[in-house]
Amino acid sequence: MRRVAVIGTGHSQFMFDSPRTSVELLSEVAVEAMNEANVSARDIQSIYVGNVLGDFEEGQGMVQSFFANDIGCFNVSASRFEGACASGSMAVRDAYMWVASGYYDIVIAAGVEKATAMGVPLATRTFAMFGDSRYEYASGFTFPAVFALLAHLYADRYGIPLEHLKEQMAAVSVQSHEYAMKNPNAQFHKMITREDVFKSAMVSSPIQLNDACPFTDGAACVVLASEDIAKKLVKQPVYIDGIGQSSSGRLSSQYDYLPRIRARELSSKQAYDMAGLRPEDMDLCELHDCFSIAAIIAAEGLGFFDFGTAGEAWLNGETRIGGKIPINISGGLKAKGHPIGATGVSQVCEITRQLRGGMVSQGRQVEGARHGITDTLGGDGVVINMILSAQ
Amino acid sequence: MRRVAVIGTGHSQFMFDSPRTSVELLSEVAVEAMNEANVSARDIQSIYVGNVLGDFEEGQGMVQSFFANDIGCFNVSASRFEGACASGSMAVRDAYMWVASGYYDIVIAAGVEKATAMGVPLATRTFAMFGDSRYEYASGFTFPAVFALLAHLYADRYGIPLEHLKEQMAAVSVQSHEYAMKNPNAQFHKMITREDVFKSAMVSSPIQLNDACPFTDGAACVVLASEDIAKKLVKQPVYIDGIGQSSSGRLSSQYDYLPRIRARELSSKQAYDMAGLRPEDMDLCELHDCFSIAAIIAAEGLGFFDFGTAGEAWLNGETRIGGKIPINISGGLKAKGHPIGATGVSQVCEITRQLRGGMVSQGRQVEGARHGITDTLGGDGVVINMILSAQ
Repeated sequence: MRRVAVIGTGHSQFMFDSPRTSVELLSEVAVEAMNEANVSARDIQSIYVGNVLGDFEEGQGMVQSFFANDIGCFNVSASRFEGACASGSMAVRDAYMWVASGYYDIVIAAGVEKATAMGVPLATRTFAMFGDSRYEYASGFTFPAVFALLAHLYADRYGIPLEHLKEQMAAVSVQSHEYAMKNPNAQFHKMITREDVFKSAMVSSPIQLNDACPFTDGAACVVLASEDIAKKLVKQPVYIDGIGQSSSGRLSSQYDYLPRIRARELSSKQAYDMAGLRPEDMDLCELHDCFSIAAIIAAEGLGFFDFGTAGEAWLNGETRIGGKIPINISGGLKAKGHPIGATGVSQVCEITRQLRGGMVSQGRQVEGARHGITDTLGGDGVVINMILSAQ
Repeated sequence: MRRVAVIGTGHSQFMFDSPRTSVELLSEVAVEAMNEANVSARDIQSIYVGNVLGDFEEGQGMVQSFFANDIGCFNVSASRFEGACASGSMAVRDAYMWVASGYYDIVIAAGVEKATAMGVPLATRTFAMFGDSRYEYASGFTFPAVFALLAHLYADRYGIPLEHLKEQMAAVSVQSHEYAMKNPNAQFHKMITREDVFKSAMVSSPIQLNDACPFTDGAACVVLASEDIAKKLVKQPVYIDGIGQSSSGRLSSQYDYLPRIRARELSSKQAYDMAGLRPEDMDLCELHDCFSIAAIIAAEGLGFFDFGTAGEAWLNGETRIGGKIPINISGGLKAKGHPIGATGVSQVCEITRQLRGGMVSQGRQVEGARHGITDTLGGDGVVINMILSAQ
């Protein structure tokens, strides 16, 4: 297989109530990414799109075909991927393989979601379909409850008083909002304090509103190319050197392993082994903080901290720029926003821009970063990781 | 890239109102396919599933993760593909690439749909989302109208009196019902005559009920493996030697080309060129007869008949066993049924079983067949073709 590079990135404003359709959002970010990559529509040989709720949101399925056509990529192959919150990462990983194999040379991977137009109650209902619909949903066990359960299991397993875990969880959200202040594409530009978290509405104890990421409209896009072509087109290609994907099925089947997520540990091992790198080689990480407890669990599963200690790392600033491993310097799902099918692609955009340097706004650059890892968790069922390298 | 083989097939009963869930249907066909392939769940490294309306039908998204878990494929990667009616073919083509590249050795590609529980009116509404929702749906231009338009354009372009075209179209449906009589998995086991077609309800002139395929519940599955492994596991691997995929976008953007479907001509050329074969090398074909006119158009786009002449071929029996090119000997979408996300996988199953020999019921075997081609058309937007070879 060939080495594959990211040569262009496009990222929309993440926001509530975007006036654009999914096809328009995709077109906007694709044009940005193609310009950055110094390619035009006629150079694109295939398109991979992550999208979850398009049919519910807009009554539009198969958005990838209309998107391909609207940006002038006539009659290329275009496929849609659904793996709940990991759909965007699924699209990028798949696009990677079609270039790595030698079948295509230049392709687009993108993700999009319009999750807010239907309103939060209906969005919550429809999104619950990406957990187990027969047993979990029927028991009221939707995603906030899932992560509330994980928080309780986590506190119990590692002997952390729940009140202290809540301090740790709040620290995750506070840090994300702080960095999002410096990310012009973030949904929230508003500082919050731990007190703000504790005063926010209770969603599913111990998870409060400010422990949870929002629903978001937005899109992101990357152009991928084979190494030889990448070097001709751009000065600083960023390489995808490791990929991993693992599914798990409903939570009850993960019983023995919770609150650790076995799929993440297997997926990230695949990515690390493929890249020949270890967690300590990573200079930054974008991980799936759909809830603050999810961020803590993810940082441990990725190998950055011992199990039961990641919350303390957030409290101590080890996850900030200058700390042991800068995490979610984009603002993360919590503050940058979480347009479901776009999130994984947004993570790849962020790591790529950080590794290229000079592409993120002041106060967010992780200086000298050479390797970064993305992490997305989809529903009950899938974790996808990708490792990117500057050279 | 390595050569990739189909080493196992699984196919459910196609029917109205299946009592099984999507996960149960998928599990049933996967077990059948794994048994045929002489592999067990622990041998499967990745899973690819085509499914279109799962979230609408059952309130269950991300069906692939639960399916993987339920058949004992713990923590493998599992992805879902949506390309309207071509979703199943999209899953198989993608699975092909992950084996061809050398990344995985043995994988499952499957498709499933439960399209009938919601009732035909709601199924028609939801399925219309896979055309263009902003302009086409709002104009009442759902799929029956699309193909009615194509029938009128076809009659006009090739100077065929509409009454005669209707005879040709009816011949397509009659042949499909006849062969479906001999396919135990087919949804319909009922002979029809051309008169039955002409007496059936008018859907969208000139398309009548018996010119249209039904909604269907069902699933199909194939196990794919690299050539070297395939030869160790089964006596008669069937190889995927050509693949093609092309998207087109909304019908208005295909204006100049209609009633020919440019995406099909490009996609099938990719497949033929890759396989080093021509239309005249094909011994049988499973093509996308969602409406009888669609079958006529497809047979021409695939290169079997001159433009404007395929309907006459059906009338003359050239599409039957013993004719120029046996088409839809399974019964096709019209009579075997059309479980949307499963249809492409069902086509691959059928061609594989025909090429292996001795696996289809009496009166349906295309004797000595060495090469076959599948064809699926998804919504406004995508055509996927695959060429399979017996050796």
